[in-house]
Amino acid sequence: MILLYVGEQIMRLRNVKDAQNILDNSSYFIKNPENKKGKWKDVFGNDKPIMLEIGMGKGDFIIGMAELHPEWNFIGIEKYESVLVRGVQKLDSKVLNNIRVISMDAINIGETFDKEVDSIYLNFSDPWPKKRHFKRRLTYKDFLYEYDKTFKDQAKIIMKTDNDGLFESTLINLNNYGYVFDDVCLDLWSKDCENVRTEYEIKFGSKGFKIKYIKAHKK
Amino acid sequence: MILLYVGEQIMRLRNVKDAQNILDNSSYFIKNPENKKGKWKDVFGNDKPIMLEIGMGKGDFIIGMAELHPEWNFIGIEKYESVLVRGVQKLDSKVLNNIRVISMDAINIGETFDKEVDSIYLNFSDPWPKKRHFKRRLTYKDFLYEYDKTFKDQAKIIMKTDNDGLFESTLINLNNYGYVFDDVCLDLWSKDCENVRTEYEIKFGSKGFKIKYIKAHKK
Repeated sequence: MILLYVGEQIMRLRNVKDAQNILDNSSYFIKNPENKKGKWKDVFGNDKPIMLEIGMGKGDFIIGMAELHPEWNFIGIEKYESVLVRGVQKLDSKVLNNIRVISMDAINIGETFDKEVDSIYLNFSDPWPKKRHFKRRLTYKDFLYEYDKTFKDQAKIIMKTDNDGLFESTLINLNNYGYVFDDVCLDLWSKDCENVRTEYEIKFGSKGFKIKYIKAHKK
Repeated sequence: MILLYVGEQIMRLRNVKDAQNILDNSSYFIKNPENKKGKWKDVFGNDKPIMLEIGMGKGDFIIGMAELHPEWNFIGIEKYESVLVRGVQKLDSKVLNNIRVISMDAINIGETFDKEVDSIYLNFSDPWPKKRHFKRRLTYKDFLYEYDKTFKDQAKIIMKTDNDGLFESTLINLNNYGYVFDDVCLDLWSKDCENVRTEYEIKFGSKGFKIKYIKAHKK
């Protein structure tokens, strides 16, 4: 059993029976993704912009985005296969040719993508609220450095969270690393903009937690 | 009668009888401040760092800071004399040699200070919530450009507000203008740090409005 920090709660991940089998048999799941480095456009068979979501969880966001935006390709990354399998099960009931999913740790992203990513989405990442864990946050500079290796042109990061501490450190980290802010929003649900809600977002947004949002780029 | 936007409320400013007399007779009030340009250290008779507060209102913040920090000099700026006089009345009952106040519009700051300011404080500035008024916000780039003329070394801005819209645009404006974020806080009252509360902050913070804070510098 894996213990995963989700927002203010510890969620117990149930082992999914035959998780590995389900992943291996899905055309959406890419095994050994590092072998595709520099060749992801061949996976999709076209040259459309590639959007990554790091920490896709059960996939509601990235699947919704893939349905909304056939003009883009999507790759979902999730560390835990026992979570990823839930997304794959959803995908297996659909026909979408612009989405793939992989299982890996975000810190290895530079070994899996080489100047071929358009944008990175970070949705409700683990906030790592303890001060001594700040280096584990997905917008810590060591991660930003790895992300740099993946972008085709401009670096672009779009992030949502309900966690104040993670949002504060993300604003500081992105700013200090040279990112230019395009948009900042302290209450995304109050704005009239396109927003595919994640499963986590619906749960905690409905309880009154404000969803914070930032979109930023770097040349 | 002047109508001044304060947070979510319109506050009626009562004319203070003899406001002009009270100001003119106070040793804390500097008339024709543009005549002191480049010579503010002579006003204080020493070379201590000079901190500005733009929009000091009734002065609780800057007077509290002046009491806490005798190692710094303070200049409070307030557009409305009928508000400023309240701060002067408080000052006149104290003995503080490290604070002066002036009445002027923030946009004229570059004509009143010449490379002699250490930091600028912006506390609960008018949020100008209507979209068409965004250029009036005190962190709009035209103001940042004027502030540049005033700083001795690094530009330093420290800002507090309870208004989401003003805070969002301040984060974007400061970032886009090249400011480096030192600290960002979405709920200042939850943090254990030195914070002199303004009269406005106490009123709205007590009602549950979260006080947002940013500290940033530019080389």
